[in-house]
Amino acid sequence: MNSELSSQQVKDIGEQGLLERLQRFCPPEIIGDDAAVLETAPGQSLVVTTDVLVEDVHFSKLTTSPEDAGWRAAAANLSDLAAMGASPLGITVGLGLPGEVKVSWVERLYQGMTECLQKYNTPIVGGDIVRSPVTTLAITAFGQVNPSQIIRRSAAVVGDAIVVTGVHGASRAGLELLLHPELGEQLNDVEKTALIRAHQRPQPRLDVLPILWKIFDSQSKIPNLKSKISVAGMDSSDGLADAILQICRASGVGAVLERRQIPLPKTFKHWLTEDQALEYALYGGEDFELVLCLPYSLASAFVQHLGEGTAIVGSITSGSTVLLHDEQKKFPDQVLSLSQGFQHFGQ
Amino acid sequence: MNSELSSQQVKDIGEQGLLERLQRFCPPEIIGDDAAVLETAPGQSLVVTTDVLVEDVHFSKLTTSPEDAGWRAAAANLSDLAAMGASPLGITVGLGLPGEVKVSWVERLYQGMTECLQKYNTPIVGGDIVRSPVTTLAITAFGQVNPSQIIRRSAAVVGDAIVVTGVHGASRAGLELLLHPELGEQLNDVEKTALIRAHQRPQPRLDVLPILWKIFDSQSKIPNLKSKISVAGMDSSDGLADAILQICRASGVGAVLERRQIPLPKTFKHWLTEDQALEYALYGGEDFELVLCLPYSLASAFVQHLGEGTAIVGSITSGSTVLLHDEQKKFPDQVLSLSQGFQHFGQ
Repeated sequence: MNSELSSQQVKDIGEQGLLERLQRFCPPEIIGDDAAVLETAPGQSLVVTTDVLVEDVHFSKLTTSPEDAGWRAAAANLSDLAAMGASPLGITVGLGLPGEVKVSWVERLYQGMTECLQKYNTPIVGGDIVRSPVTTLAITAFGQVNPSQIIRRSAAVVGDAIVVTGVHGASRAGLELLLHPELGEQLNDVEKTALIRAHQRPQPRLDVLPILWKIFDSQSKIPNLKSKISVAGMDSSDGLADAILQICRASGVGAVLERRQIPLPKTFKHWLTEDQALEYALYGGEDFELVLCLPYSLASAFVQHLGEGTAIVGSITSGSTVLLHDEQKKFPDQVLSLSQGFQHFGQ
Repeated sequence: MNSELSSQQVKDIGEQGLLERLQRFCPPEIIGDDAAVLETAPGQSLVVTTDVLVEDVHFSKLTTSPEDAGWRAAAANLSDLAAMGASPLGITVGLGLPGEVKVSWVERLYQGMTECLQKYNTPIVGGDIVRSPVTTLAITAFGQVNPSQIIRRSAAVVGDAIVVTGVHGASRAGLELLLHPELGEQLNDVEKTALIRAHQRPQPRLDVLPILWKIFDSQSKIPNLKSKISVAGMDSSDGLADAILQICRASGVGAVLERRQIPLPKTFKHWLTEDQALEYALYGGEDFELVLCLPYSLASAFVQHLGEGTAIVGSITSGSTVLLHDEQKKFPDQVLSLSQGFQHFGQ
C-alpha cells in the first residue's frame, strides 16, 4: 500500500485530486471560492512580490530535495517582503506539473514551503495547479507595511552607514560543497552541515524589522529627527555586491565598502584564500540577508542589538562609484560593477 | 532596421533588457524595489487570485495571437475578482520564456494584457521574467471588497433565483469557428466576427457590481431586510453547468435550471440544433459571465437594470440535485453532474 502510494503520479489523481491532497497545507476557511479574502490592518500599505522558479533553471530534482526547493522558494519571497520592511500576510502558489511527477514530490514541496511559512505565521491562501511539460513554481507573496516604514532602494543618502544583517558567502559555499564534496576535506562534519544548511534553508530576515523600528523609536526622542530619517535597503539574494550597486544606482549615490568588515562564516578563515572568501561573499548570492543604509548612530545601535554576524560594512558617498577598500592596504582599491549573474537567457 | 528589431529574440537582450522594454506597460512609480506597494481603502478586505497558463495546454501560439492571449489571461483574473464582488487593485505577471521567443511576441502579449486592464483601471504592479523551456504565464490579481459585499459560492439559500449576467455558448462557438471555419457557412461575417470576438476578447463583468449593490441599497429601505441578504455566486469560466454545480455543492443545496431561459447568442437559433446550442451554453466555458443567486425580488430588479442577455435561469431548491427542466416538456428532466472538463492531467 505504501509503495503504491509513493509511486502515484500526478496524472493518476488529476488536478482535483491533487488539490484535495494539498488542502491540508492551507487554512480551511480560505479554500473554495474564485479568490481568497485577506484582512489588512487599518492604515497599512499592501506590498506584493512575485517569483517564478523553473526546474533545471532555478532548481534541480537531482540535487535539491522537494522540501528544500519549497523552503527556498518561500524564503525568497518572504525575504523580498522583509526587504521592503513589510510583514507577511500570505502567499499564493501557482504550480505547473508534468503528469509524471510523483504526488509525493508535490506533497513534500508543500511540506517544505509550509515549514518555512509557519515560522513566520504566513498561510498559503490560494493557488492554481496546471499541466505543464516542465515543473514550474510561481509564488506571489503579500505583506503589509506602515507607509512611514517602507524600505526603498532609492532612499540612501550620503553619509549613511551600510549595514548587513548577517554573514555572506555561506549559501554559495554550501552549494559548492553539495556539488563538489571533495572541496570540504579540511572541514569537519559540523562545519560542512552548517554551510550546506545555509544554502538549503536560508532564513528571511523578517526578525530584524521590529528591532530596527524599536531603535528608531528610541532615537526619535531627539526632536524632529524621526521625520528626517528613512532607511534604504534591499535583500542580498542576488549577492552583496549586487545589492549595494542596486541601492547606489537607485539612490544616485556611491559607496565605499570595507573588505575586512564584511562578515564571513568563521570556517572560511582556515578553508579559503582571502580572494576566494571575498568572491563567495560578494557574488555568491542567496544569503537572503538585508543590506540597509541608515544614519551611523542608528546603525551602531542596530548592529549592537543584533549581535554577531551583523556589521557596518561601509558608507554611502557622493558620486556613483562603488569602491572596495582595504583598510590594511594589502589590496588596491577596486571598483565594483553590476554583476551579470542574473542574466539567464544568454546561456 | 525594422526587420532586425522584429526578429530579435529574448536571448538577444536578456532578462534586464526585456524588463526595460516592458516597463512602459507598468506605472513608473512602482518599478525598482523588491516588491510593489499598493494602497487599500480603509475597511476593505483584500482579495487575491492566481492563474497559471502554459503554452500548448492553455493557449497555442499558432491559433492565438499574443494580444489575445494577453487579453484573455488578464480577463480571466479580473473575472475571478468580479466573482468575489471585488474591485481590482493590480496584477503581477510571472513569465517563463524560452530564449528563442521573439521580443515582439512578449511586447504584444503585454499590449493585449494592458488593453484589457486599462478598461478596468488596473495596473501591472510587478513581475518576474525567467528562462523556461516552455512559455508560461502566471498572473496574480488583487482586489478589494467591502466585507459585507463578498460574493461566496457557499451562500446560496433555498428559494434564491439564479441569475446569469449574459449569453452563454458564444466563446465556445467562436473557438469552433476558429478551429473549423467551414462550420460557419450559414453565418454572415458580422455574426462570425461577434462569436470569434467573444472567444478572443471576453469581458470580465466588473461592470455589474455597482448595479447589484445599488439595487441592494434601494431594497434595504425595507427594515431588517439588508442584513438578511447575501449574494452567492461565481463566474462561468469553466462553464455554466459547472458554476451552478459548484455553487450548489458549496452551499449544500440543489437547483432547477430552466433550459429555455438560458440566454443564447441570437445566431444559435438558425445555426445550431437545440441540443448543440445547449451543449455550448452549459459546457462550453470561458464566457466569463457571473452566475449569481439572490432573492427573486432583487433578481428581477437586477435583470431589468442590466437588460438584454441577462436572465433568471432557475432557482435554488432543497436537496442536492441540479435538474435541467424544460417548461415546454419537449425534453425530459435531466440531472446535471460535475463536468470533468477541467481535469487536464489525464490527457
